[in-house]
Amino acid sequence: MQFEVTHRDAGSQARAGRLRLPHGVVETPIFMPVGTQASVKALSSEDLRAIHAQIILANAYHLYLRPGVDVLELAGGVHRFMQWDRPVLTDSGGFQIFSLAELNKITEEGAAFQSHIDGSRHFFTPEKDIDIQIGIGADIIMCFDECTEYPAPFDRAEKSMRMTLKWAERCKRHWLGRAAADQALFGIVQGSTHESLRRECAAALVDMDFPGYAIGGVSVGESKAEMAEATGWCTEILPGDKPRYLMGVGTPEDLLAGIELGVDMFDCVMPTRNARNGSLFTSAGRVNIKNAKHVRDFGPLDPACRCPVCQTYSRAYLSHLFRSGEILALRLNTLHNLFFMLELSAQVREAVRDNRFGAFKQSFLQSYAGREDE
Amino acid sequence: MQFEVTHRDAGSQARAGRLRLPHGVVETPIFMPVGTQASVKALSSEDLRAIHAQIILANAYHLYLRPGVDVLELAGGVHRFMQWDRPVLTDSGGFQIFSLAELNKITEEGAAFQSHIDGSRHFFTPEKDIDIQIGIGADIIMCFDECTEYPAPFDRAEKSMRMTLKWAERCKRHWLGRAAADQALFGIVQGSTHESLRRECAAALVDMDFPGYAIGGVSVGESKAEMAEATGWCTEILPGDKPRYLMGVGTPEDLLAGIELGVDMFDCVMPTRNARNGSLFTSAGRVNIKNAKHVRDFGPLDPACRCPVCQTYSRAYLSHLFRSGEILALRLNTLHNLFFMLELSAQVREAVRDNRFGAFKQSFLQSYAGREDE
Repeated sequence: MQFEVTHRDAGSQARAGRLRLPHGVVETPIFMPVGTQASVKALSSEDLRAIHAQIILANAYHLYLRPGVDVLELAGGVHRFMQWDRPVLTDSGGFQIFSLAELNKITEEGAAFQSHIDGSRHFFTPEKDIDIQIGIGADIIMCFDECTEYPAPFDRAEKSMRMTLKWAERCKRHWLGRAAADQALFGIVQGSTHESLRRECAAALVDMDFPGYAIGGVSVGESKAEMAEATGWCTEILPGDKPRYLMGVGTPEDLLAGIELGVDMFDCVMPTRNARNGSLFTSAGRVNIKNAKHVRDFGPLDPACRCPVCQTYSRAYLSHLFRSGEILALRLNTLHNLFFMLELSAQVREAVRDNRFGAFKQSFLQSYAGREDE
Repeated sequence: MQFEVTHRDAGSQARAGRLRLPHGVVETPIFMPVGTQASVKALSSEDLRAIHAQIILANAYHLYLRPGVDVLELAGGVHRFMQWDRPVLTDSGGFQIFSLAELNKITEEGAAFQSHIDGSRHFFTPEKDIDIQIGIGADIIMCFDECTEYPAPFDRAEKSMRMTLKWAERCKRHWLGRAAADQALFGIVQGSTHESLRRECAAALVDMDFPGYAIGGVSVGESKAEMAEATGWCTEILPGDKPRYLMGVGTPEDLLAGIELGVDMFDCVMPTRNARNGSLFTSAGRVNIKNAKHVRDFGPLDPACRCPVCQTYSRAYLSHLFRSGEILALRLNTLHNLFFMLELSAQVREAVRDNRFGAFKQSFLQSYAGREDE
């Protein structure tokens, strides 16, 4: 993996860059669609190419349980399995073990849990998690960490952060031992909303020297102000020549806030989940396609949008599909919302290259704050 | 509408033809995918073009209730509403009124029913139904009829058939009165499993002189032998120079049986519904993609198939998507099953042109009867 910051915005910490990975180049800042189970919900790999997705996420916990790492290895890796030839990042699955699975016991050695699918028992150590992710074959893999819940008192957050640091060291050592692996390993900063913990964790990870760094434990219930604060503490310390990834974030507004603080990469299920619930992004704000006023609106969802959906179908048809419970509604809505996030990323990159990120952000938010329907 | 039989098979009543409609030419025999609510479940109009669908169905009952005929008229018709520029056939919705809605009262005047969506009360006459279908704007519209249930004793079937005939006359008269309409109106033969009733109904409809004829009241629970018998009684009487449509049929085997008896058009929800349940057609028989043996099968679903799914994805991936409940499974499975039916139609047309329908049918069934999984 190679990362290069090609432009720095004059009026903020926003930057534009290029991330070279085994399966291609990713231009940053970038939004990464979430394909938890080796499928971005409702879309095919061809759909993802059509909306210019550059890198997608998959999840080690989910893929380990189903179809299993052996199946992915036999397939020749997740890329060949899902016929997606561009970069993939796998999340370690730590978050899912602590939220989705039935967690039986967590010690410094690792986490014992039962599958949410069939109740089967499993034990993940940092080393095993790295092996799983290498088996899946993504371009970027993540350290096994504990995503600290919110709110977390200082003592609890400190204890959790220190374990995440110990796990990060073990992940790094194990990853180094698998020298043939193509994967770039990212460390994850925890520390909840506590400044000294965030700074200490970031500094310790930088000392370990990872190819890239993520900020975890955000977007877990804290306020926007708290999220921005925590992000800022981290980006102040994380090295400027390494990619920075804000995990599980976020809305169009969150993306801009993170980019302003120097973040390069984002992922979130919100654009796809909202799409499936009929909540759609437009340049003039969010549209609730269930709203009765769209039933007879034969214009495009967003006249300013160049996505395949806005180029082809009317609000009236999207409204009809959603109200009728048609499966096609899920796909068209998802195509549109993801295109919106990817197009926003592209516009930000251009603004940063032109030294006008601040003006772009202001103009975007002014229009977007219209929030047409909500 | 113009219909031309271009080839007649030497060894059977199978024929190949060409149906010219306002939105394009349909080559017969043809399978018509069902898009009840102006959407073939899980597919976009672009998907339908990619698998070479020539004509699709929509349903007057469903579209009348939602989004409403006024919306479709404002949109410029169902074609523009769903961005499908090839032919559309609407079913009258009679079948849905008698099966899906809460039927309040049926008299010779018409049918009073309550919407299955919101319980609202409606009254359809043959005249109103024709107006609805003209408003929707399909290329082919169907007479409002009563689909006689199975089994039906002679007296009940006779009474029902005679009402269908009276309704057909009123439909024809009303349709003639709307001379500007582009729609071709098909009469529907009822009469259940009773030979004299089927023959009488077919002859009476032929006397009324419709642009095309459908055989209704089949595939409603009767045996394959009974269906073939009823179909044969009708095709013996229906004029050779008009298109014949066997409604709600069917499986690949049913298609071949109907074509052998001189049927030109077919529709059925089975290929799409089966797809959504993981039951897939292949040249070697049906495959249940849920079957454990597919989890590690990295070959295509059907090596002989040229559909976009078999050209791209493996059985292992299709199996994973289905087992994981991914929405993409519904779309890929549907694409494949419909392609299979459309490709079968194309192969039959070629066989008829080459005077080898019988040999084709035998060879297809021999291979297909393998029924790999079931």
